[in-house]
Amino acid sequence: MKIDGTPYRTIWPTADNSAVEIIDQTKLPHIFTTLRLETMRDAERAIKDMQVRGAPLIGVTAAYGVALSMRDHASDAALAATCSKLLLARPTAVNLRWGIERMRAFLAPLPESERAAAAWLEAARIADEDVAINASIGQHGCELIRSLYHDKVHKGRGYSVNILTHCNAGWLATVDWGTALAPIYAAFEEGIPLHVWVDETRPRNQGASLTAWELGQHGVPHTVIADNTGGHLMQHGMVDMCIVGTDRVTARGDVCNKIGTYLKALAAHDNGVPFYVALPTPTIDWTLQDGVKEIPIEERAPEEVTHISGLCDDGQVRSVQLTPQGSRAANYGFDVTPARLVTGLITERGVVQAEAGAMQKLR
Amino acid sequence: MKIDGTPYRTIWPTADNSAVEIIDQTKLPHIFTTLRLETMRDAERAIKDMQVRGAPLIGVTAAYGVALSMRDHASDAALAATCSKLLLARPTAVNLRWGIERMRAFLAPLPESERAAAAWLEAARIADEDVAINASIGQHGCELIRSLYHDKVHKGRGYSVNILTHCNAGWLATVDWGTALAPIYAAFEEGIPLHVWVDETRPRNQGASLTAWELGQHGVPHTVIADNTGGHLMQHGMVDMCIVGTDRVTARGDVCNKIGTYLKALAAHDNGVPFYVALPTPTIDWTLQDGVKEIPIEERAPEEVTHISGLCDDGQVRSVQLTPQGSRAANYGFDVTPARLVTGLITERGVVQAEAGAMQKLR
Repeated sequence: MKIDGTPYRTIWPTADNSAVEIIDQTKLPHIFTTLRLETMRDAERAIKDMQVRGAPLIGVTAAYGVALSMRDHASDAALAATCSKLLLARPTAVNLRWGIERMRAFLAPLPESERAAAAWLEAARIADEDVAINASIGQHGCELIRSLYHDKVHKGRGYSVNILTHCNAGWLATVDWGTALAPIYAAFEEGIPLHVWVDETRPRNQGASLTAWELGQHGVPHTVIADNTGGHLMQHGMVDMCIVGTDRVTARGDVCNKIGTYLKALAAHDNGVPFYVALPTPTIDWTLQDGVKEIPIEERAPEEVTHISGLCDDGQVRSVQLTPQGSRAANYGFDVTPARLVTGLITERGVVQAEAGAMQKLR
Repeated sequence: MKIDGTPYRTIWPTADNSAVEIIDQTKLPHIFTTLRLETMRDAERAIKDMQVRGAPLIGVTAAYGVALSMRDHASDAALAATCSKLLLARPTAVNLRWGIERMRAFLAPLPESERAAAAWLEAARIADEDVAINASIGQHGCELIRSLYHDKVHKGRGYSVNILTHCNAGWLATVDWGTALAPIYAAFEEGIPLHVWVDETRPRNQGASLTAWELGQHGVPHTVIADNTGGHLMQHGMVDMCIVGTDRVTARGDVCNKIGTYLKALAAHDNGVPFYVALPTPTIDWTLQDGVKEIPIEERAPEEVTHISGLCDDGQVRSVQLTPQGSRAANYGFDVTPARLVTGLITERGVVQAEAGAMQKLR
């Protein structure tokens, strides 16, 4: 997608293939800066310090980390050591493991002398595959938006589609396009008039910082709202559809996503607003059924609730404390939206109902 | 209620009756400081600058403002001028008008020479009436908490009642006790083990700052959470009841309250958690029926969404910007929870169903 008119991905090899570059996402939305990753350690730090985040992007960065490492040492021992080290950068990131294991399986059978060059190509292939999957999610989701748009115009209910999203499932979380935002970018490119309500997404504010930034840079009309606002908007016909991403979907269609998603799904259901979840099919965990009972929810540091960062008058990004000294805070990272509240799953293989039978075709 | 062990109200006359004192609520939760109001202008500024907030407290402060003014000039002209001036401090605050009109009606028939002394007593009477109403709300609500507690213990489901609240409807918003928090303080005083989940309540964070502070000072166990969290907690049996305040209730029981209340009511309904609204009966607007259609929702400054204040490392309270330059924000102050999602209204005259017929007895 575009930054100030220039097309970007979130990770790309330099012209001379000597390194990869990334956008330092810890500095957004206040400062746009890119970083050069020249060694496996650079890639490891970028993952650990969350300069890259979002499951697909973490996987691709790790793949490039393996590739950079192979240039220095390509022995079996070096490959094993590299993979072990990178895995520790964010131990709970499923895609990190996936990206590393794919590189290991691909490189292990090759002769040492071919590993460096082959690894570089394989990392690029993983990146391109992610872009293709997301572009396809975008096309399938765009059909829904187009049809809502025509329906709205036909019924004289307005000339622009209002879409609410939660957290950041945009191109910054992937290599390009994003998941939840891919249909929005596709519809925007097609010229369908639209506007996005961006939940700020406390406590880490990925909506107010990342989603608002990437939509703004690409030129997509949007408005940031407090997470408390969506219900009121839906009661008053100001939201035509919701699209969110997900970290994990169960075999019967329960959706684990950023904390607060469930509340928006309840409001959508109560007001007859379609609620869609966009995902690449590997996000489905076929071993799970009841998401509320079976998916463990990560508790994160209370400081993410008690403190927040932003840009001060003096141009410095500072953290400020919001709560009184001595008040405890709890920080649950995700919640589970039961399938009954989900209108459909937008995948790279089409839109399907969030229901065990319908989902079989994605298996 | 107590601050660091010492009993306080939010407004009180000095020992020599020369002035009234208030807590400067703009400094909370980081700094506790009191202010002396010696003139009508001091009272006016305290209301305008939101050093006092919450409908009942604004009304009482205005009443004391009239009383202070009568000491300097007690003519009919002075009374009229004082009332007009104070009304402008926060033109949309219904209780401000109510407090001033009550003082005007009380003072107008009195001889000039008696007005100053009478006004002082009347202002104190208004304050005491507020305390009595809230104490009564506390007692009625406490019965609900007590019964939930006994039920929980009886069923072996735990030994502490978990109550979720949104925004600040605590003693800081009234003269003492509060509305939504009055039952909690009453139950706490009675020794019922309880714990309060405090919604931070973006964008103005009255939960994280005021509710957390007053509960902490009084010694009530509590945990601050992002507004996104309540649904997850309710899905997992971690909330036994919700109690919120309200700015306006319609004749059929629709509840207008701080934005985000509706989302919590939906989650409570979806998980069988009782959802109560605490209010003094004058909060009911008998002229309104359908709250969603009939109650206009105030749009506030977008800066409350794009910026937030907190305590910096250097001990200064600073405002930081959360959103990217150029991203618009919308800031709806309230939403309406339909009566069908409300378990009951806790009033000074008892607990009644949020339903036109049942509410007749409050008329």
